[in-house]
Amino acid sequence: MAEKNEKKTDYAKPSLLESRVKEGIRKLSAYSVPHFDAACKLDGNESPFHLPSDVASQVEKALSAVEVNRYPNPEALAIREIISRTSDFPLDGILLGNGSDEFIGMLITTFCGGSGSILIPVPTFSMFGITGTALGVHVLESPLDGKFDIEIEPFLDIIEREDPDLIFLASPNNPTGNVFSEEKIRSVIDRSRGVVVVDEAYSDFSGHTFLPDVKEHENLIILRTLSKVGFAGLRLGILYGREELAREINKVRYPYNINSLTQAAAEVVLENHEFVNENIQLIIRERDRVYKALTGMEGIETYPSDANFILFKVGDADAVFGGLIDRGVLIRNFNRPGRLENCMRVTIGTPDENDRFLSAVGEILTP
Amino acid sequence: MAEKNEKKTDYAKPSLLESRVKEGIRKLSAYSVPHFDAACKLDGNESPFHLPSDVASQVEKALSAVEVNRYPNPEALAIREIISRTSDFPLDGILLGNGSDEFIGMLITTFCGGSGSILIPVPTFSMFGITGTALGVHVLESPLDGKFDIEIEPFLDIIEREDPDLIFLASPNNPTGNVFSEEKIRSVIDRSRGVVVVDEAYSDFSGHTFLPDVKEHENLIILRTLSKVGFAGLRLGILYGREELAREINKVRYPYNINSLTQAAAEVVLENHEFVNENIQLIIRERDRVYKALTGMEGIETYPSDANFILFKVGDADAVFGGLIDRGVLIRNFNRPGRLENCMRVTIGTPDENDRFLSAVGEILTP
Repeated sequence: MAEKNEKKTDYAKPSLLESRVKEGIRKLSAYSVPHFDAACKLDGNESPFHLPSDVASQVEKALSAVEVNRYPNPEALAIREIISRTSDFPLDGILLGNGSDEFIGMLITTFCGGSGSILIPVPTFSMFGITGTALGVHVLESPLDGKFDIEIEPFLDIIEREDPDLIFLASPNNPTGNVFSEEKIRSVIDRSRGVVVVDEAYSDFSGHTFLPDVKEHENLIILRTLSKVGFAGLRLGILYGREELAREINKVRYPYNINSLTQAAAEVVLENHEFVNENIQLIIRERDRVYKALTGMEGIETYPSDANFILFKVGDADAVFGGLIDRGVLIRNFNRPGRLENCMRVTIGTPDENDRFLSAVGEILTP
Repeated sequence: MAEKNEKKTDYAKPSLLESRVKEGIRKLSAYSVPHFDAACKLDGNESPFHLPSDVASQVEKALSAVEVNRYPNPEALAIREIISRTSDFPLDGILLGNGSDEFIGMLITTFCGGSGSILIPVPTFSMFGITGTALGVHVLESPLDGKFDIEIEPFLDIIEREDPDLIFLASPNNPTGNVFSEEKIRSVIDRSRGVVVVDEAYSDFSGHTFLPDVKEHENLIILRTLSKVGFAGLRLGILYGREELAREINKVRYPYNINSLTQAAAEVVLENHEFVNENIQLIIRERDRVYKALTGMEGIETYPSDANFILFKVGDADAVFGGLIDRGVLIRNFNRPGRLENCMRVTIGTPDENDRFLSAVGEILTP
């Protein structure tokens, strides 16, 4: 017997974390992007362009008119109406999220009531798998082919055998940069008995969208975002789907998920999007220029890009990454065993930034 | 056999929604607050006060300096450091959410790996139950007592029997307005083998907090928000907990969940919070004045409040609600069978707004 006043410790009792936190979460690492200070920031797939001064003034005016003491419009109606008008898509099929990230969670929460699984090609955007694991669904993976396109036979086999509730196809894909073949995406949509989500975060740079296909396919959902075209700080993701699907997703949306400042600023930029389109065209031209220059260098293998970034492979990615940091240029290092070994991703910046990146890489790789 | 070219329809096949959407979600209604235009808006538990002009100028300046093309600071470090300093709480135990709503989901996602259930007293804030249902956990309810305090014996019995992973105690409670007894909350914390979340959204108006208790209780988490004290439009919820718990919750947080504009504005108001405290004191004085006035009226039963709103009961809530709308005053009608039958909730506004509300109620109830 323990003595009086001695606190009894039950060593067999599992700790609070062990007994309550799902194993999948205990094993997860928090998503984190390593921070480095660099004058030339080409790691985040952001737009390098600031607002034009006339739009900036309008945004400032709109922000100063916001009554921050009041809750936001719970339906973010004004922005959704602009998006509905400019995309010619029914208002009730459009939802807004706190970035696409929030939609990934909302979609898994809503639709994984069947087989309890999601299917993703790999490598792809990491938040699909992380969020699936956090929410306790089974994450099925199917490797991309040698050109980073969908390897269609095994992909369709998994669909047939495992009947995933949700399939996430990022096209253009991140970090590989390429679009998947339209024909393959269509066969995935046709063969899936669950919901297929085409994440078009980068589609402004590819010139292709599956948005018109939503009319013909009841199981197709499209995700977009303002993050890659100039507004990563606002956190505004857009979902397009059939109204009957959007209605279910909307039930798991937090009622005031889009704050008032983002609503006010987005309203201005969505109504004044000509500069956005011009910037996109400039990024596309610069992407093609950087791609050619990189492809011409010794010791670099480049992968074709339909996005605002380029994936490329070098002999020693860690050394190149360090050399770039030394020269004030930050890109993303994906070096890990497997398909992305010695792979790096550079975001397309302003012409000056791209020049600086190219000349730094040239210096590092020239013996 | 079906003829060629005739599309085969398998009528036995369940629809996409039936086969994929969890039954709990199919039965849910989307959270929605009915919209009425009214000059005097006392329905949302918002602060009626705008920013003082000097703070407003600082906020405008901070907002115009935001680079919206860049992602937000993923850890919202500047705000968390201010909160850590002003609350004397370890930085790593502080997390920020897109409103408290997002935390409810993050907490359920993180901690419901044991019994898969949450426990709430009822009536309480509706998002606990809605989010629990959406995320597929079992929502256990225990009715509050005659004074809307925790009925402790049955509550502890449920803890003993069902071992809920999470317990949500909103204190002050919404929509009832009262704090729960400290002793009862402490016994819930002591007896629970899971995590206890004290939601202190309204604690600025009660003068009491369980924040210091986090040091002594490994299973206690406190939620706060800026929404009730002047900044509902920013969507900023704050979580305080042990670092080892915060670390797990942080894994299911979306990396950029607090947008750049909210971060910039919140930094200013958190550094200039004297006007916030003054406004809170004014609301407390007004609440006590409105409470006395309502209590003195024939045909009204009032419930004591420690929050920025008052729950009261009338003979015919729907009629009173309509009469108030006719007079340009919007409050919240909770009339439904059960404990809240003919109950209404009025948010404390400016002295003028409160006068307008009181005189309108007086008119409506005077035969």
